[in-house]
Amino acid sequence: MDGVELVTLEDIRAAAERIRGAVINTPLLPCPWSSADHPLWLKPESLQAIGSFKIRGAFNAVARLSAEERRRGVVAHSSGNHAQALGYAARAFGVPAVIVVPDNAPAVKIEATLALGAEVVLVPMAERMSAAEAIAAERGATLIPPFDHLDVIAGQGTVGLEIATELPDVELVLVPVGGGGLASGVATAVKALCPGARVIGVEPELAADTQESLHADRLVRWTNEQRARTIADGVRTEPSELTFAHLQKLLDDIVTVSEDDIRRAIATLATRARLVAEPAGAVATAAYLTRTDLPRGRTVAVITGGNIDPQLLAACLAS
Amino acid sequence: MDGVELVTLEDIRAAAERIRGAVINTPLLPCPWSSADHPLWLKPESLQAIGSFKIRGAFNAVARLSAEERRRGVVAHSSGNHAQALGYAARAFGVPAVIVVPDNAPAVKIEATLALGAEVVLVPMAERMSAAEAIAAERGATLIPPFDHLDVIAGQGTVGLEIATELPDVELVLVPVGGGGLASGVATAVKALCPGARVIGVEPELAADTQESLHADRLVRWTNEQRARTIADGVRTEPSELTFAHLQKLLDDIVTVSEDDIRRAIATLATRARLVAEPAGAVATAAYLTRTDLPRGRTVAVITGGNIDPQLLAACLAS
Repeated sequence: MDGVELVTLEDIRAAAERIRGAVINTPLLPCPWSSADHPLWLKPESLQAIGSFKIRGAFNAVARLSAEERRRGVVAHSSGNHAQALGYAARAFGVPAVIVVPDNAPAVKIEATLALGAEVVLVPMAERMSAAEAIAAERGATLIPPFDHLDVIAGQGTVGLEIATELPDVELVLVPVGGGGLASGVATAVKALCPGARVIGVEPELAADTQESLHADRLVRWTNEQRARTIADGVRTEPSELTFAHLQKLLDDIVTVSEDDIRRAIATLATRARLVAEPAGAVATAAYLTRTDLPRGRTVAVITGGNIDPQLLAACLAS
Repeated sequence: MDGVELVTLEDIRAAAERIRGAVINTPLLPCPWSSADHPLWLKPESLQAIGSFKIRGAFNAVARLSAEERRRGVVAHSSGNHAQALGYAARAFGVPAVIVVPDNAPAVKIEATLALGAEVVLVPMAERMSAAEAIAAERGATLIPPFDHLDVIAGQGTVGLEIATELPDVELVLVPVGGGGLASGVATAVKALCPGARVIGVEPELAADTQESLHADRLVRWTNEQRARTIADGVRTEPSELTFAHLQKLLDDIVTVSEDDIRRAIATLATRARLVAEPAGAVATAAYLTRTDLPRGRTVAVITGGNIDPQLLAACLAS
């Protein structure tokens, strides 16, 4: 991975200036129910306006566009949190946004994206990327990917900047890994500002392709079907070469959690921290609650998002 | 009510200094799903370490004690959020705390109070106050009431100070009314700093004793049985003369919401704002969602707490 340009602390500081006021500086929430020698704070990105950290990267990427690029608009393919994040950021800048959505996406997600003023184009699942590229080429619009982009990674890194600023003596940061954009940015900021802190990625056992890749020291691909087995839809994606280069250099370790661990963490977050977390949003807390092999000390778990199906939340509470 | 000493903005500013660092300055969360001409922000006090705003008043009251008073300890009677708030604040100051709890209180609440290091004394419901007073007399401990105390009201008022500081052009603040401590403090700060803003109290229809009292211009008492009909256990209490004097002077209006309104607001907060609110915590949002007679404009709804029975939350999500 030599020669891949990585995001820098300066990039993240610049992103923090750009997103100030548009994005919530989410508080670190202390958990009195955690143990005194292994205290936990939660970083609830679920409280962002569109319910996930993705707004940070999307906002930074749109803010970096020239006036001419903004006029021609932005495009993305996503049915998840990145779609709403880009719709929200584009609206804030008065930039037209096209979101290419697979035609099997839940109606509620399509409506949420439409409500933000974005244009939604429905295509068969397999044609998502080609359709987005065709729209970008045809309109001269800029394609904003969900994680494979330095401006997006720098935006997500502001989560780490806020952690390091508010809790400079943090010893352990637990961060979910899907495409790896958040983990790349957070690790860059935390390792630069708190050199003694460890940053550990967390994946579902059923989508542990990044753990396998890091152990193999090369990108190992799992099939979509394999990764789709986890309920944590937000981390079913796989790293790009760019994010994998960050993770290889910066992560101290990567651990996994079971589906039951995730469900129990969703219930714990709702009842003890009064936070609604989506499955991917709960994996870092699940690792804190179940992985006895983690280093002990002042720990932050990033809650990446809260867009969960209400029936699933109710089921986790009842079990 | 002439001659009753009311809390001042200076008292609230002093309280804010005392609680700094110990209490979370909760962010104002913008709601993109609210309408453009009637935009809503949420003030999520449910995110405090013990799940409610009560930590502010308890912390301010304990901080105001002399060294000798701290040595002799504090005592309260409560089975709810004030018990845990006082236990948490007392522990932070190394002050012994005795909480008198009715012997029919849920085990989970008793355990939560014990876990904070407080001594719990179980007595029959009717003996709560006399038992607390006896312990205070016997040990020389200071009785810290849940709302009928200027230091407690000043602490709760820091919620209003934070709203006025972060959103100085706020036009409407919706705040739940039970004992009236929070509404008294919030109205004091908001009316002093944002004279153009209206502060409107919200009660469940089934515990609308304060609305009746304000209309009658005197304290009208409802029975415990009447007030116990609402699911919003956090606002079943009734104002004292002290808090009623504040509400008479400062509230612009007081409105009510139905039990169904409250259940629907709990579901809306979970799914659209990713917040777990207890029934009392959801009444201000319920008023925003259902009271078409409210003044329109930049609105803040205070989410007072998030300590809800998981089964009730699941039921609200399913309906």
